Amino acid sequence: MEKTVATEEREGEVAEQVVNPWQVSAKDGGKIDYDKLIVQFGCQRLDEGIIERVQRLTGRPPHVFLRRGVFFAHRDFNEILDAYERGEKFYLYTGRGPSSEALHLGHLIPFMFTKYLQDAFKVPLVIQLTDDEKCMWKNLSVEESQRLARENAKDIIACGFDITRTFIFSDFDYVGGAFYKNMVKVAKCVTYNKVVGIFGFTGEDHIGKISFPPVQAVPSFPSSFPHLFSGKDKLRCLIPCAIDQDPYFRMTRDVAPRLGYHKPALIESSFFPALQGETGKMSASDPNSAIYVTDSGKDIGSKIRKYAFSGGQDSKEKHMKLGANLEVDIPIKYLGFFLEDDAELEHIRTEYGAGRLFTGQVKDRLIQVLTEIVERHRRARAAVTDEVLCLRFLMYMRYIH
Amino acid sequence: MEKTVATEEREGEVAEQVVNPWQVSAKDGGKIDYDKLIVQFGCQRLDEGIIERVQRLTGRPPHVFLRRGVFFAHRDFNEILDAYERGEKFYLYTGRGPSSEALHLGHLIPFMFTKYLQDAFKVPLVIQLTDDEKCMWKNLSVEESQRLARENAKDIIACGFDITRTFIFSDFDYVGGAFYKNMVKVAKCVTYNKVVGIFGFTGEDHIGKISFPPVQAVPSFPSSFPHLFSGKDKLRCLIPCAIDQDPYFRMTRDVAPRLGYHKPALIESSFFPALQGETGKMSASDPNSAIYVTDSGKDIGSKIRKYAFSGGQDSKEKHMKLGANLEVDIPIKYLGFFLEDDAELEHIRTEYGAGRLFTGQVKDRLIQVLTEIVERHRRARAAVTDEVLCLRFLMYMRYIH
Repeated sequence: MEKTVATEEREGEVAEQVVNPWQVSAKDGGKIDYDKLIVQFGCQRLDEGIIERVQRLTGRPPHVFLRRGVFFAHRDFNEILDAYERGEKFYLYTGRGPSSEALHLGHLIPFMFTKYLQDAFKVPLVIQLTDDEKCMWKNLSVEESQRLARENAKDIIACGFDITRTFIFSDFDYVGGAFYKNMVKVAKCVTYNKVVGIFGFTGEDHIGKISFPPVQAVPSFPSSFPHLFSGKDKLRCLIPCAIDQDPYFRMTRDVAPRLGYHKPALIESSFFPALQGETGKMSASDPNSAIYVTDSGKDIGSKIRKYAFSGGQDSKEKHMKLGANLEVDIPIKYLGFFLEDDAELEHIRTEYGAGRLFTGQVKDRLIQVLTEIVERHRRARAAVTDEVLCLRFLMYMRYIH
Repeated sequence: MEKTVATEEREGEVAEQVVNPWQVSAKDGGKIDYDKLIVQFGCQRLDEGIIERVQRLTGRPPHVFLRRGVFFAHRDFNEILDAYERGEKFYLYTGRGPSSEALHLGHLIPFMFTKYLQDAFKVPLVIQLTDDEKCMWKNLSVEESQRLARENAKDIIACGFDITRTFIFSDFDYVGGAFYKNMVKVAKCVTYNKVVGIFGFTGEDHIGKISFPPVQAVPSFPSSFPHLFSGKDKLRCLIPCAIDQDPYFRMTRDVAPRLGYHKPALIESSFFPALQGETGKMSASDPNSAIYVTDSGKDIGSKIRKYAFSGGQDSKEKHMKLGANLEVDIPIKYLGFFLEDDAELEHIRTEYGAGRLFTGQVKDRLIQVLTEIVERHRRARAAVTDEVLCLRFLMYMRYIH
């Protein structure tokens, strides 16, 4: 039981970091220790060998998020590549809990990476919008959760997935039939004590929380999508996600063989840091902690200039002498995510670290990069009107049939 | 919290009777104490006044099961009658957990009574087949639970419901959409500690059990059936059931007002006794403990003669002198359920009790009565082929639309 390791670690040290689907906090307000997470969770590091293998198999350069370690851990990704090499297909599964109207850049990361994987491997993709989860965890009505799911779906569609290979669904719409049957099968395999060990529920938690994990588990099984994968029960599933979702899939991987399915493989990212510094995920309650896809170029400029934590020195003289501390510098981190040109990034890092570039200059370049991404996203999203959303949803289903 | 009463009683006395949806056992192997159940559960006795009121409002004699106390307890049935008297409609909700192929006579009781209520009040009826529950509690596959639900649906349809006012569904078929949304709303209102108090779950129970109570709760809310009750959120619901189902609806009644619905009203029956005597429900694992609707006339004859516990005396002489003990005599109990003629029943009771009728004679009359009921049921069920079942299911939905 992988969970036991994590539980014991947590019990042994009081101020330990906590990473689960609802809470991410580092030890003593420091940085998340990802190496420790890999040990605690029992997943594997994404090493150079596996990245080279992806490049060789897909015939294209590995995505920035692979090259620069944004996606840093995995489970059974090698098995996916083995199968792919043998000529077998797999499918991708990702999702989002629609708890807010506008997405920030951190929310886009799994979708940008998933789009790359879909393009590179030419595989089907299912995207789950867990409006039921958000209705149960946040104080949202069913209707409001569904509205947010629709709005978020527009942003997700704007990421440019292959509409002939993508199925987006909200739980409130789609739970039922084959999907519900799999939920029941999973629920039969998991005791209350087990979910307490994995998720830390208490007796005062409502039973909706206890009922939910199977809902997030079953998109890992092809039979949950009879209109997509009929008769393909042995199709493998690869899940790109942030590492805080790992508990769901530890549970799912435990159950999968008992139901006759492959364990879903995972490829897991670190967290996109807040503007104020790298101590965990961004806070939805503080709009100044993140760049939103709805921010104007002016918003982006002022947020970066005002809030992005700088590793530069206090005075010009000191900076020229000591250079910037790249380890804590948020503009450099953000460029690492979004500036595609490796040579330029390396140049900026070197010059900034040596004190020959100043924070203002690095921030200006970042503002340029982010404004371009956000503008491009806004144009793509504007094309996804309510009418197109309905059509697209239908098309997603119709094309795949 | 009504549950607290029941819990405390149970903790206080070890050999206490246990009545919940999965276990019915009397104290020290004796009879179920229904008076005590009424106090423990916090429901009300169905008294003469309410039965007379039913007669007056429906303009027909009350059903045998009402006249003879088979349905003996209720919750808010008076409110249903008040509403009906004001010209408001209500709907009926009953169901079955399809754990066996053939129904026995005890299984038919709620359906026979529900048919009477539907005929008398001219109201819609929803019938839930909890194939998901049986898949989770018994060691049944999804497919086998669904097959049993289909077979049981034939027996239920054979009871002769008004097809223009009846909707039968299996959970594996119907959970989803509006129904699932209500499940989530209910689950949000019920803590784990609460379901432990009501149902006695433990940490080693699988989470399917903990997830299930909302599934049985939400047919109590009209919005779970948008194709039937659109825009009628204030429609009242009356649930005829055996009293072991009360825990589900105590939970439901607790939640209903928080979701803007009326509390469902209940009308609750005692248990149909086993052939061997009145100590609880019949055992599905012992085919000789019950009369099944698949039994032939010959089966019925030999089961009654061989197994039906008699209150008659050991010898003819003793019987003529002391008479039969009607309190423990199963043929008399069964006639009380199924012999409609009050005068004849009273005559048999008097003569048998006085020792002027013998067990063999009473059993012969019972065999006659049961054979007739089972033969009639078998003819009606034979007309419900697989093809008709499909048609009927569709018709049930089509007519109500």
